[in-house]
Amino acid sequence: MSKRKSASLCARKVSSLLLGLTVASTLVFTSAVPSLTYAASATALSKTATGFSAEKADWQLEYEQTFAQLVKKESLARYSKDLSERSSLVGSPGNEANVEYAVRELKKAGLQPEVKTYHVYMSVPKKISVTQTYPQKRELQVIEKLPKGTKHANEIVPGYNAYSPAGEVEAELVYANYGRPEDFEELEKRGISVKDKIVITRYGANFRGVKPEQAAKRGAVGMLMYSDPADDGYIKGLVYPDGPWRPADAIQRGSILYIFRYPGDPLTPGEPSTPDAKRLDPADADSLPTIPTTPISYGEARSLLEAMEGEEAPESWQGGLPFTYKIGPGQTRVKISLDIDYKQQPVNDVIVRIPGAKYPEQMVVIGAHRDTWVKGTSDDLSGWTATMEIARVLGEMAKKGWQPDRTIVLAGWDGEEYGLLGSVEWAEDEREELTKNAVAYINMDGLGGQFFGASAVPSLKQLVYEITKEVTEPRSGMSIYDDWYLRSGRKEPAIGKLGSGSDYTPFIQHLGVPSLDMGFGAAGGLYHSAYDNLDAMERFTDPGYEHHAAGARLVGMTALRLANAEVIPFKYSDYAADVRAMLEELADKGTLGVDLSPVIAQAQEWQAAAAALEEKAANIIEDGVTEEEYGDLAKLNAALLQQERDLLKPEGLSGRPWYKHQVWAPGLTTGYAAQPLPAIAEALQANDPAALQKAAEKLKEVLAKAAETARSVK
Amino acid sequence: MSKRKSASLCARKVSSLLLGLTVASTLVFTSAVPSLTYAASATALSKTATGFSAEKADWQLEYEQTFAQLVKKESLARYSKDLSERSSLVGSPGNEANVEYAVRELKKAGLQPEVKTYHVYMSVPKKISVTQTYPQKRELQVIEKLPKGTKHANEIVPGYNAYSPAGEVEAELVYANYGRPEDFEELEKRGISVKDKIVITRYGANFRGVKPEQAAKRGAVGMLMYSDPADDGYIKGLVYPDGPWRPADAIQRGSILYIFRYPGDPLTPGEPSTPDAKRLDPADADSLPTIPTTPISYGEARSLLEAMEGEEAPESWQGGLPFTYKIGPGQTRVKISLDIDYKQQPVNDVIVRIPGAKYPEQMVVIGAHRDTWVKGTSDDLSGWTATMEIARVLGEMAKKGWQPDRTIVLAGWDGEEYGLLGSVEWAEDEREELTKNAVAYINMDGLGGQFFGASAVPSLKQLVYEITKEVTEPRSGMSIYDDWYLRSGRKEPAIGKLGSGSDYTPFIQHLGVPSLDMGFGAAGGLYHSAYDNLDAMERFTDPGYEHHAAGARLVGMTALRLANAEVIPFKYSDYAADVRAMLEELADKGTLGVDLSPVIAQAQEWQAAAAALEEKAANIIEDGVTEEEYGDLAKLNAALLQQERDLLKPEGLSGRPWYKHQVWAPGLTTGYAAQPLPAIAEALQANDPAALQKAAEKLKEVLAKAAETARSVK
Repeated sequence: MSKRKSASLCARKVSSLLLGLTVASTLVFTSAVPSLTYAASATALSKTATGFSAEKADWQLEYEQTFAQLVKKESLARYSKDLSERSSLVGSPGNEANVEYAVRELKKAGLQPEVKTYHVYMSVPKKISVTQTYPQKRELQVIEKLPKGTKHANEIVPGYNAYSPAGEVEAELVYANYGRPEDFEELEKRGISVKDKIVITRYGANFRGVKPEQAAKRGAVGMLMYSDPADDGYIKGLVYPDGPWRPADAIQRGSILYIFRYPGDPLTPGEPSTPDAKRLDPADADSLPTIPTTPISYGEARSLLEAMEGEEAPESWQGGLPFTYKIGPGQTRVKISLDIDYKQQPVNDVIVRIPGAKYPEQMVVIGAHRDTWVKGTSDDLSGWTATMEIARVLGEMAKKGWQPDRTIVLAGWDGEEYGLLGSVEWAEDEREELTKNAVAYINMDGLGGQFFGASAVPSLKQLVYEITKEVTEPRSGMSIYDDWYLRSGRKEPAIGKLGSGSDYTPFIQHLGVPSLDMGFGAAGGLYHSAYDNLDAMERFTDPGYEHHAAGARLVGMTALRLANAEVIPFKYSDYAADVRAMLEELADKGTLGVDLSPVIAQAQEWQAAAAALEEKAANIIEDGVTEEEYGDLAKLNAALLQQERDLLKPEGLSGRPWYKHQVWAPGLTTGYAAQPLPAIAEALQANDPAALQKAAEKLKEVLAKAAETARSVK
Repeated sequence: MSKRKSASLCARKVSSLLLGLTVASTLVFTSAVPSLTYAASATALSKTATGFSAEKADWQLEYEQTFAQLVKKESLARYSKDLSERSSLVGSPGNEANVEYAVRELKKAGLQPEVKTYHVYMSVPKKISVTQTYPQKRELQVIEKLPKGTKHANEIVPGYNAYSPAGEVEAELVYANYGRPEDFEELEKRGISVKDKIVITRYGANFRGVKPEQAAKRGAVGMLMYSDPADDGYIKGLVYPDGPWRPADAIQRGSILYIFRYPGDPLTPGEPSTPDAKRLDPADADSLPTIPTTPISYGEARSLLEAMEGEEAPESWQGGLPFTYKIGPGQTRVKISLDIDYKQQPVNDVIVRIPGAKYPEQMVVIGAHRDTWVKGTSDDLSGWTATMEIARVLGEMAKKGWQPDRTIVLAGWDGEEYGLLGSVEWAEDEREELTKNAVAYINMDGLGGQFFGASAVPSLKQLVYEITKEVTEPRSGMSIYDDWYLRSGRKEPAIGKLGSGSDYTPFIQHLGVPSLDMGFGAAGGLYHSAYDNLDAMERFTDPGYEHHAAGARLVGMTALRLANAEVIPFKYSDYAADVRAMLEELADKGTLGVDLSPVIAQAQEWQAAAAALEEKAANIIEDGVTEEEYGDLAKLNAALLQQERDLLKPEGLSGRPWYKHQVWAPGLTTGYAAQPLPAIAEALQANDPAALQKAAEKLKEVLAKAAETARSVK
């Protein structure tokens, strides 16, 4: 009767279910919830297909449901098990074996997978060594203590940061919290210099590549990064193998390539790394980090931090180790010795095409990265196995005559973990084709999990809501939308903004292809460690592969919707409204005397033009599409593709020409998190009215172009 | 590299570790965190013993550490496994078998357990039946669908509410959210009557007994309660057996006895249920519920709720089932048919004493309930096995000559789940002894888990902080205090107020024995279902029994501290300050013209008197206690015991004479949650200045008495 165990109470409205056009359906996906028979509840899933005439909608919904029924969790479980056997680290034999496996499996489904190889300059670790040299001498463990008998243990890469320069440094330690600019400013305020020191920071709060960049700027000679138990270890819950949180020996590997400057091969920005590509001298590649940097576990960080002297670290800098953290310098000295080769290595993307019947040149691209740090059953075999499953099912359906109107391209990207290598090189390689014909890009990075989440351009918001209403959330048996809605506590569940950190980056930010990233998250802290493995997936993250299957259904159905729509379901009036709202929010905080009203007015004008176009589209398809309307539709769809492209500037953002999109970019000091309206935000941050004026004008230009495109359809 | 998986960031200050008197120690409890060697960190645990002279503190800390080292998780695991074999439902054969097991085990440790039997009027379910009679006829499942081969499955009691009256009712359903007064007021506002209806409510937000009482008041003829998946089911996470959340067939059993009026045998309020006790006519027992009430699972609630008509329920009433909840009445009819016997049944408390050497008459009582609903591995075998382990270790230590100064009493309460039966009857039975000599009561209800929490009278706050600094949190390897602190986000982790819902109630609220409830919570929703079992404990709640062991150490050490202190470590200046703060908070919201300043001043006066007494105590023991000071100490300790007793009024609270404490009571419409200063709060709520005036005077009297007691020590 203890009240301690009574559940916390959370009660929110179940959404407006049964919204829109509801089509009777007998399709029921098996639910993980025992003993609830969902046959009775299929009507709770609503069926609406924006962009389709009533007649075609029937065909489409049948198409989607046939697809969804053929997606099998057993198939996903098998892929997951087989691919988790070996590490798929880019450039490794296990990675190659996994390419062969995927190709073999996809061929079995009647598909013709292609392996696209690029030759990318990358780091290859030979020996990683970290030694505490004072107050006592101690060699640190740089790899997990895996149980004896772990298969393919020799293939497990030690904890290291891809693209760290090689080198040996020894110095006193200074603790800099998360290594954000504000953390270094706090040190400066206290008169503590990191010059000629090794900085130790904890993971979290920003992209890890930002940390050594900030430290290097201030004269540090090296960096250690560790995972603090307060962030993803024992303070959060039981650690692996008892629970999903990070144990004392687990190391977060990860790239520190400055992807916020540009991702992909550091020597070929903007161009594919073909064998004969023109390459920069590495000394001129400004995405390459400059100081030796390497990650350690909290079990190993402990003795370093505990021995430190100097001032007590501020309250918010204290972590979960059992002592008061000090800033240093003093007492603890460390030697970092990194023997890392740099060479060109192959990056192998696996690409499959399901040719379109009606508009074969137009493409909907689905992708997930197929490389991993270690086993990577979660990151990102969960996304890649789902991609394979979608391909398998579309392949089976093609044999029976189901063919999409537009081509669906499915991709397994290699080298994502090192810096989005495979997707960037492919996107650069296919720039012309994609710019002309890519309808959308859908990304999956982390599909095993329990709680749905999405990030997307605002024009895709309604489509995400629509599709999530049509797939059952296996945990709850309600639609994914309603489950998401109920957990969100908002009137509409929030869709994130696209920053960086996964393979949508080249599509949206370099090419202006409308992008969407969907997946399922879970509580846990095994990220980039040797414990992101099959056991953790099957016991904690997605037992039964139910969410793998739901994710594959969701993404496959979204792709089919985009591939077959008579009017591609992009709602740019939402996009323009969001841009306007973001502008108004920035303007509210002061504009350095610069008048932002013209650009705000321009966003408003785009909004009106886009809304008019949407109304036109709705009118055309309302009573079925006649032959003579086909030409109108083609123009309309072309305008829909074009509006996102209109938001690019060929010269890119100031200081980072690769990032061409004027609305979305990763933050320069966050790395992952999106910085919307980057030029304006950076000018405001820099207190630079001239730059702000220029940024506003530039944004106004792209918005005007989009509005003009919307208006151009007569 | 997906950012979805990067951990949420929580960074707070690690507390002032190493506070106070630090004693070197070689004691290290094995930690669940692999590969962190905690030998190096033993100094992170601080050792302070308030109430002990320096010389005696050394002996005490050695005593505690010897105790702590002897507590074994293996022993706890064995008890847990053995006792989880059968159900320990009060009055059942499994319960009796488990008494015999405990007695046998405790005797092995050289102890002399006593079984105290009371004869309590209670409900015995014969047949529970719920039928949907319209729009379709359907018999509902009233027990979990356990896998074939489940051992002792015939002993599993169906889902039922203890103390529901027997009877058969059939009526239309009305949905009333959580069944709180405000929920019924919302119905009234909408003109929806529950008269002659069956009310369906969800579990949560209050003690379940409040729900049928509120419904009965308004003329309802029956009640169904179900666990909504938004509260502790699939919306929260994976359900059992995939995860720890409530599956569709799991039923929350539970008593609906009106324990907020008085707990224990409904026929013998205030007196023990001895065979010859004077008993009320059940018709006169105002703790007995009046309308047939029974619980169902969400798998079964679904078809009832889904078929309902009438208005849409408000936003905050919507739960996690996949449709819009309606209020009714209309469409759904239900028949509840409860064949429940009422008879006297035995309630068997297991009591063990470790006699004190110096003050054998003074008692520190430790207790946990040994009855369960089904297997109850978490609720509350976790607490009871820890009680047994503390007893076992103290028994072993006694053989080697370690004897506490005061007597330690360890109790396994029976019938807690039905309404605190065993603890209430024993406390009533031992009233005289306890009133005179009980130093404190320490309760454990839910010890298996991962996150520490405590509720206590304010005089025990410092002791809780002190002891939690001395025991290692197995999840994190830091002290329990620091782990708790780090998670709390406050300057001091909060200690809860004592309401009701577990066995501390008779001690604090009926007898004025300073009480403390400690344990470890965990995420999950298997509460009172057949799935609170060994498997769930060992896979999700406390793998390895590390927290069972930490809890046993913590409680045992607290008891030893209280048993051996030269000055019992109660800080009444904290208590008085809290009372004053609660009064000021109430006064800030308006006092109906009544002047509360005299009672506030009285609290302040008590605070000063208590602080003076604490200073006196510190002075006495500062340089060691001399023979001639023993008399002073005895008086001082008597005054410390007395101050809590001073807060009682023999006539009790208005309308509920059993509840004698003037500062703490369970809320009349919450049932579990504490209602501090109940008379004043209720008068304010009722807008009754005369009652408020009277309540303030009464409170002033008890505070004056406590102040006088504090001052009485010369």
